[in-house]
Amino acid sequence: MTSPPLPHSSHAPGAADPAGPGFRAEDERYVGRLHAGLEDFFAEQRAVLDGISPDALPLLEAVAALSSGGKRLRARLCYWGWRAAGGDPEDPAVALAGAALELFQSAALIHDDVIDRSDTRRGAPSVHRRFEGLHARHGWTLDGPAFGVASAILAGDLCLSWSEQLFARAAAALPGTGRARAVFDLMRSEVMVGQYLDVQGEVAGAGQDREGAVQRALDVIRYKSAKYSVEHPVVLGAALAGAQEPDLERCSAFALPLGEAFQLRDDVLGVFGDPATTGKPAGDDLREGKRTVLVGFVRRRGSEEQIAELEAALGRPDLAEEDVERLRGLITACGALQATEELIDSLSEQAFAALERLDAEPVARAALRALATAAVRRAA
Amino acid sequence: MTSPPLPHSSHAPGAADPAGPGFRAEDERYVGRLHAGLEDFFAEQRAVLDGISPDALPLLEAVAALSSGGKRLRARLCYWGWRAAGGDPEDPAVALAGAALELFQSAALIHDDVIDRSDTRRGAPSVHRRFEGLHARHGWTLDGPAFGVASAILAGDLCLSWSEQLFARAAAALPGTGRARAVFDLMRSEVMVGQYLDVQGEVAGAGQDREGAVQRALDVIRYKSAKYSVEHPVVLGAALAGAQEPDLERCSAFALPLGEAFQLRDDVLGVFGDPATTGKPAGDDLREGKRTVLVGFVRRRGSEEQIAELEAALGRPDLAEEDVERLRGLITACGALQATEELIDSLSEQAFAALERLDAEPVARAALRALATAAVRRAA
Repeated sequence: MTSPPLPHSSHAPGAADPAGPGFRAEDERYVGRLHAGLEDFFAEQRAVLDGISPDALPLLEAVAALSSGGKRLRARLCYWGWRAAGGDPEDPAVALAGAALELFQSAALIHDDVIDRSDTRRGAPSVHRRFEGLHARHGWTLDGPAFGVASAILAGDLCLSWSEQLFARAAAALPGTGRARAVFDLMRSEVMVGQYLDVQGEVAGAGQDREGAVQRALDVIRYKSAKYSVEHPVVLGAALAGAQEPDLERCSAFALPLGEAFQLRDDVLGVFGDPATTGKPAGDDLREGKRTVLVGFVRRRGSEEQIAELEAALGRPDLAEEDVERLRGLITACGALQATEELIDSLSEQAFAALERLDAEPVARAALRALATAAVRRAA
Repeated sequence: MTSPPLPHSSHAPGAADPAGPGFRAEDERYVGRLHAGLEDFFAEQRAVLDGISPDALPLLEAVAALSSGGKRLRARLCYWGWRAAGGDPEDPAVALAGAALELFQSAALIHDDVIDRSDTRRGAPSVHRRFEGLHARHGWTLDGPAFGVASAILAGDLCLSWSEQLFARAAAALPGTGRARAVFDLMRSEVMVGQYLDVQGEVAGAGQDREGAVQRALDVIRYKSAKYSVEHPVVLGAALAGAQEPDLERCSAFALPLGEAFQLRDDVLGVFGDPATTGKPAGDDLREGKRTVLVGFVRRRGSEEQIAELEAALGRPDLAEEDVERLRGLITACGALQATEELIDSLSEQAFAALERLDAEPVARAALRALATAAVRRAA
């Protein structure tokens, strides 16, 4: 497995990178150690599951398959937060912490796909669909989709526990890092609460005031995604390396707006992205009725007719590609896409400016700049 | 809140209790500290959730309501395992560990009820039904049952994270207790794997050999319930107090057969129990198609006709009370109920004999004997 290439830092806004391309080799070495750590852990857990019953191995295989993909964004942010705070590149604890973040991400994705009834993830069947397929292949009895959902709930729970096992090992190897434990705990609560606010917004949103729609959508992405995808990994890495306030606050000042920009990019890709690149059908956010910032801007800027058309379509699982195409036109025409892109730009500028104020090793600053650029400019 | 009374130890088999009734007051003091610890933790998390959004508070309320009930069996077993190994009755860490076990149990119940589509739990609506009710009361849009399931998945995840937060606090207060962390981690994996084997047995079981049915059902209850409800709590408590092998093995020799007897009693109550006492409709295990030991014994001992009748009924959610009544007659007539009761007796005897070999403080032995008796003789 190899990590996707980072863009050259010369593509990034801000000052020229004094450290040159040196961070790329170090980043790849870290990702290599991360993968080795995950493989060792899966081998260990395979023995545990096999000892209970070989019938349980599909749980491990589903988690391992899902966790073999992805850009490793969270783990790499944690590593470079650690390095920014002066952490030792060779310390195995930071690979364990990164693996914990990646498994937390897998657990969240498994349950998120059940909740959103998503059929695919990273170009492969989602975990509940994978178990539904196992049921069909074996010709088992009763309800295949229900078996798929039950198995995915349990696979997600297992993955959540595994994430925490790995974090506890990292923390045990780095005494005096109680602040990092607090970050890890808060991160998990915030993601689950953010996801709840997301589904609650889907069912309650149409009746709520239009002016507040953009702010509510920003609250959801802050807790559901921005904090755990970007802010908490960077702060966690720095805290594991022993950083204290106010250095941790400076990490947040960089990483939180970056995380918000990252998730807004995700929302734009969820409607306008190329399914061949994102691995998910375009328009699924509309079919699921997600109250994204894009939707919030339509409600603020669109005509009554445009708002009515969007509201009638949101949450309809049967939206055809041509319906989605028409909604794309509407979101563009009323200026909602443009407003969202401007917000991404503004948040990115905040993040890059805060990065320059970070008291960090040059190589870490260069790597964080490159990761930040990739996060907000990506196409997948 | 008060704990349900323990039976007088004179009702228990085995030697007369030299400690007298002294353990009951101590047991009640522990349950009081456990409740106070849970309430403090919920107050702390209420502030976290409210800070994110007051809309998130129903998550906390659902977890707190579910966690206010129950017999506290797991926490009390942990406490008496701790005391058996010489732990200090006043140490706050053992109340944190007990609270962690209780929240783990809540998390498992929340997801279990989603998987089993159970409408009630402890006499109240199950968590997904509770959120479905919230949706209806507010007149929200889209799919109410889907909102209920999504919310319950997230509430269970939150509760699982909270359980682990509490355990980490207990472990941090008791350095050198890595063995307890290993027990806590294994416990969680085993429960999720056991639950998976349970649902996998429901869909795959009819096609599997009859002779192995009882053994497969025993494997499921061992991992899904016996170990985490009884064995791991006792061993965890002892390990937190610093006990080592082979004392921990002696704890297992008592607690594992007790846990198996406990779960077999649960299976019998699931078919023959009084709904007014159990808080769950009788026969739900049959409607869900659970491959319990009772079912396994019917497949081993029943006539072809009896087996065919049971197989045709298992997993049918529309089974009427009279169908359940007929199946009860069948399970009794072919000797499956009797065989299960004999197995409960045999496992209980093993457990009580092992308890006498435990090198424990007399008050702890008396309490464990009373808890064990309550676990296998209960009606709810």
